[in-house]
Amino acid sequence: MKKGSLIVVSGPSGAGKGTVCDAFLGAHGEIAYSISATTRAPREGEQDGVNYYFLSRAEFERMIDNGELLEWAEVYGNYYGTPLKKIEERLARGEDILLEIDTQGALNVQKKFPDGVYVFILPPSFDELEKRLRGRGTDSEAVVARRLAAAAGEIAAAKQYAYTIVNDKVENAVRTLSAIVAAEHARTRNNLEKIEEMIKGV
Amino acid sequence: MKKGSLIVVSGPSGAGKGTVCDAFLGAHGEIAYSISATTRAPREGEQDGVNYYFLSRAEFERMIDNGELLEWAEVYGNYYGTPLKKIEERLARGEDILLEIDTQGALNVQKKFPDGVYVFILPPSFDELEKRLRGRGTDSEAVVARRLAAAAGEIAAAKQYAYTIVNDKVENAVRTLSAIVAAEHARTRNNLEKIEEMIKGV
Repeated sequence: MKKGSLIVVSGPSGAGKGTVCDAFLGAHGEIAYSISATTRAPREGEQDGVNYYFLSRAEFERMIDNGELLEWAEVYGNYYGTPLKKIEERLARGEDILLEIDTQGALNVQKKFPDGVYVFILPPSFDELEKRLRGRGTDSEAVVARRLAAAAGEIAAAKQYAYTIVNDKVENAVRTLSAIVAAEHARTRNNLEKIEEMIKGV
Repeated sequence: MKKGSLIVVSGPSGAGKGTVCDAFLGAHGEIAYSISATTRAPREGEQDGVNYYFLSRAEFERMIDNGELLEWAEVYGNYYGTPLKKIEERLARGEDILLEIDTQGALNVQKKFPDGVYVFILPPSFDELEKRLRGRGTDSEAVVARRLAAAAGEIAAAKQYAYTIVNDKVENAVRTLSAIVAAEHARTRNNLEKIEEMIKGV
């Protein structure tokens, strides 16, 4: 049985990774999205089990203690983490799963899933990143400044990802991400059974 | 300046690698085909500099002595080899180049171009391979038997290629090969300049 691929997507805030992932998943109904767990309060319209698993601090900490999280972090006073069990189940069934996660988390995931597909989404330029962050109009100047400073460090982490996609246009980025996943399916290490069958057939 | 990718395609006789490569190159006018040199006589319709560089044994041996061949082999009394200079020139200009070559040659090329994209084309089954070889009707029973025996060893070599494409339908195989090349362009190691620019732009 062929195992599924774990596709891990990261990128600085403002690179547009959420938009790229949504469009990619929309075009690939067969690929599941890994839903994160968090202790932060749901925002308007967010649903439990769709956007996040919304947990209490006690519930989250129990998952940490039981080793049920692939990775987790505390960010600005809230916990965020990736439940491990669903990912393992889906991969074992041969299903691909997409994980959108920050660089710190992704580097931890790499240790446990070295065969994952690690993709970093870059904005077309730093100026464009700044424009996008300000353009949202939802964040204060202090938050924008903090995100920009964080972006610098995050972009340096791109070097630890196998793939880098420059998100100049969402449709181009989605096309490249689709190509990366198709190429992954063609990896010899994912086709060893077929090769063995053919050698035996001789 | 971004370097081009060397795409190396192998597969047993009858896997359809020639058909796949031709269709792929037809769809990708920007990718050049590496023309081999040989000492065998041109077949009807074959043109020098198009199908092969047709050389005398003395000319070929001079290229061997001068280190002008990426790899070469003597097969059934004829020399076959890959001129190195054109490949290096094209890669330096940022152009991709496709090299269709036997497994023995490909493994030698891997030593010199570890960053190349190594793709093995498999027939859908061994039965189908046999059918295709007999179906050609151009080869004697002895030649078919020899090719089938050789195929067994060649298929085992697939494990040393990064990618394996099962050629069930030419259009599927071409689509997968195109995805592999697109993914290769998105490799972080091929985008380090862009990343460095963005880090400096901070």
